[in-house]
Amino acid sequence: MIEKTFTVVGGGPVGALLAILLARHGYKVGLYEGRPDSRQTDIYQGKSINIALSDRGWTSLASIGIEADAKAAAIPMFHRTVHGVDGSLTTIPYGEEDDAIWSVSRGGINQRLLDIADDEPNVSTYFEHRLIDLDFTSATATFTTGNDEQVVVASDYLFGADGAHSKVRRLAHQLPRFSYSQTYMPQSYIEMNIRAAADGSHQLEKNALHIWPRKDFMLIALPNPDGSFTCTLFLNHSGEPSFESLQERETVEAFLNTHFADAMDYLERPVDVFLEKTAAPLFLVQVFPWSFNCKVGLIGDAAHAIVPFYGQGMNCGFEDCAELNRLIGTYDHDWEQIFPAYENVRKPNGDAIAELSKRNFIEMSDLSGDSGFQLRKKIEAKFSKLYPELWTPLYSMVTFSPDTPYAEALRVGDRQKEIMDRIMQLPDIEQDWDKPYVVKQLHELAAEAFGD
Amino acid sequence: MIEKTFTVVGGGPVGALLAILLARHGYKVGLYEGRPDSRQTDIYQGKSINIALSDRGWTSLASIGIEADAKAAAIPMFHRTVHGVDGSLTTIPYGEEDDAIWSVSRGGINQRLLDIADDEPNVSTYFEHRLIDLDFTSATATFTTGNDEQVVVASDYLFGADGAHSKVRRLAHQLPRFSYSQTYMPQSYIEMNIRAAADGSHQLEKNALHIWPRKDFMLIALPNPDGSFTCTLFLNHSGEPSFESLQERETVEAFLNTHFADAMDYLERPVDVFLEKTAAPLFLVQVFPWSFNCKVGLIGDAAHAIVPFYGQGMNCGFEDCAELNRLIGTYDHDWEQIFPAYENVRKPNGDAIAELSKRNFIEMSDLSGDSGFQLRKKIEAKFSKLYPELWTPLYSMVTFSPDTPYAEALRVGDRQKEIMDRIMQLPDIEQDWDKPYVVKQLHELAAEAFGD
Repeated sequence: MIEKTFTVVGGGPVGALLAILLARHGYKVGLYEGRPDSRQTDIYQGKSINIALSDRGWTSLASIGIEADAKAAAIPMFHRTVHGVDGSLTTIPYGEEDDAIWSVSRGGINQRLLDIADDEPNVSTYFEHRLIDLDFTSATATFTTGNDEQVVVASDYLFGADGAHSKVRRLAHQLPRFSYSQTYMPQSYIEMNIRAAADGSHQLEKNALHIWPRKDFMLIALPNPDGSFTCTLFLNHSGEPSFESLQERETVEAFLNTHFADAMDYLERPVDVFLEKTAAPLFLVQVFPWSFNCKVGLIGDAAHAIVPFYGQGMNCGFEDCAELNRLIGTYDHDWEQIFPAYENVRKPNGDAIAELSKRNFIEMSDLSGDSGFQLRKKIEAKFSKLYPELWTPLYSMVTFSPDTPYAEALRVGDRQKEIMDRIMQLPDIEQDWDKPYVVKQLHELAAEAFGD
Repeated sequence: MIEKTFTVVGGGPVGALLAILLARHGYKVGLYEGRPDSRQTDIYQGKSINIALSDRGWTSLASIGIEADAKAAAIPMFHRTVHGVDGSLTTIPYGEEDDAIWSVSRGGINQRLLDIADDEPNVSTYFEHRLIDLDFTSATATFTTGNDEQVVVASDYLFGADGAHSKVRRLAHQLPRFSYSQTYMPQSYIEMNIRAAADGSHQLEKNALHIWPRKDFMLIALPNPDGSFTCTLFLNHSGEPSFESLQERETVEAFLNTHFADAMDYLERPVDVFLEKTAAPLFLVQVFPWSFNCKVGLIGDAAHAIVPFYGQGMNCGFEDCAELNRLIGTYDHDWEQIFPAYENVRKPNGDAIAELSKRNFIEMSDLSGDSGFQLRKKIEAKFSKLYPELWTPLYSMVTFSPDTPYAEALRVGDRQKEIMDRIMQLPDIEQDWDKPYVVKQLHELAAEAFGD
């Protein structure tokens, strides 16, 4: 029997899932979280209240043997509901009829995973243990506790699952030949809320992700089980309009009323919230390597913080765990092989979803309100139904095709775009989009690109 | 008269030049360098013994009113001399007949600029002052001195000219919305030496940059005025062959003898040097913004550390200074306007030369030994002479056209490459390269791309 020990830094969803899978492989795992236990304080301190989980996330959980009971508390969203400036609503399906992305409570899924971790005899969980130092050659970690005591933890291996601001990663900056980038997006964001109706029902259509696309900025809303919606306003940090330029009650009110008139009936104190809250920045982190001396690894947002526009952050982190789970089997616990294989498989996929998530801001905020974009989606959906072996739309590859790596989705999606650019140039495409000659031409191009 | 004060952190060539130009605009300048004064210790502690300076560097110096007397001690290199594995020599000109890049002593030019700075009544120079802290809102800097005393320096503005490992930049990592990346190249390098002949003459052709291109690795040699050559061996950090894999005297000797046979007659103790020296890594740094609160700026390698394969590092830093010099005039000392204008003009050019310098490793190490590449250069050179208004080769735009910004050179160069790819596909191009029909086709393509 293996008697090796693991330290997992970070008790978020990815850290908790990683602790469980390592424990089930027979490792002794210490799971260390800097914050207090959210199950006891009843205050969930993570930033995102709800997040999107989709097939990659569910499949990864299942592959590690986690029952998908979280799905019971999740709300499927089958389409985007696009709110025009005039209050008009347009529906754009995410995929086939049953395809949905799921609005889940980040706190809820985290607590559920911590409960499962606590049930594992091989997992010991420590809260209010904040990492302050790490020896990357021996995997020895130093934490400070809530009582300001220092605790030194020695183990055979260590994983940093400590999120976008990862301390493990920041300590790695001092190591030789560590490449890193941290890139801020022009946009920042604040969260707002839409309360449930008096009878507890949802005031907007429940099973949809609502988008108010306004090109340089946008508002989105995701449903919660209690009837409320969590809304996020994405807006430039500076320039015009921006969080920086909108400082007065009057201008904020005018801005919100002009662009989000139909939402203003539902949003809770939007002007106050806008003025009171400090907008949070959006940034991407890309680093390499993801492991050090075959002793210390990075996983989840700690290895690849991305922006939220593809709803793939947690999905990608869970997929990291599933890949690691697979590699422990493949290489029979030989971490000299597992660490390099893990980073070589996952790094290109982390880079691809970073790129895709960046691009999707434009798709959500600009194109989703654009009739050309909606037509493209219709043509692709129809063609994909006719020739599923030739064409899976990019969004579906990313969201509903867990067997397609992100890097492959990005590559194929770029070729699809070239083809669709040509189709959209057909002179009468707007009237003729579902005529046979359009399908025929698309088939020719697709067969040439993707056929045997 | 202006009574504003400047702190310049870093007394390398860029910092010294910046101090001079600011002083000549009437500012009081404190120039702080962490190392001892190389003019007194007689040991030059910078890493590169000699570097390439070309038209951008000379033009920038001239525009700031620095006499180009450094040129007297510099050695013009009119062409690359490519050393084949069999010892054969091929000459590839850098540009037109008189076009040269110049091998200059980094220490020499630095000391010359420090002398000029010392002659400026407005400049005070401090050595052995190492920056340890910086308040980015007040431009107040804290240094430790050689005697371990702490000195706090207040000034109106501050520039970090403290090189690739810039402390100013590293302190800026803590600022909100600071984007940064540090990327390691696969190659590392060590320096070697070729001694002068007994009579003080050069043992290899003097007025050339010597290259031993071996695809994944290469050796280069630049002439020094004392008859010696400074050589640099670029080789992968790990893999096969690499600094990591070559550890035994026997294998190192075999490696050097196999690939650099004709150089082995001249290199000083190459096997010993290879085994004794620790290879230095090569990395690129890209950040944004380059200024903070209109009080603190970054310049030179501190803002944009690049790899040395285009010989443009110091040229680019001097050009930063020349641009700043220009903007002080344009905006009449209004730093609320100068800082943003400076970073907006220079950042795209810094990014472009970073990209160009990365790509040039392949051009030097692989293509320069390739007959197709040499043919391309010949065709371009001939066409450029016939139609100079339509075509300046990329290398010449970067090296000999200081009026063409790097970003423009990169853009035009990419279009030229597409055109030359088509020309090189002509079936009989190797025999027919200077036939009229080739020139005619090239002219058609170039006129379409670059004509009025």
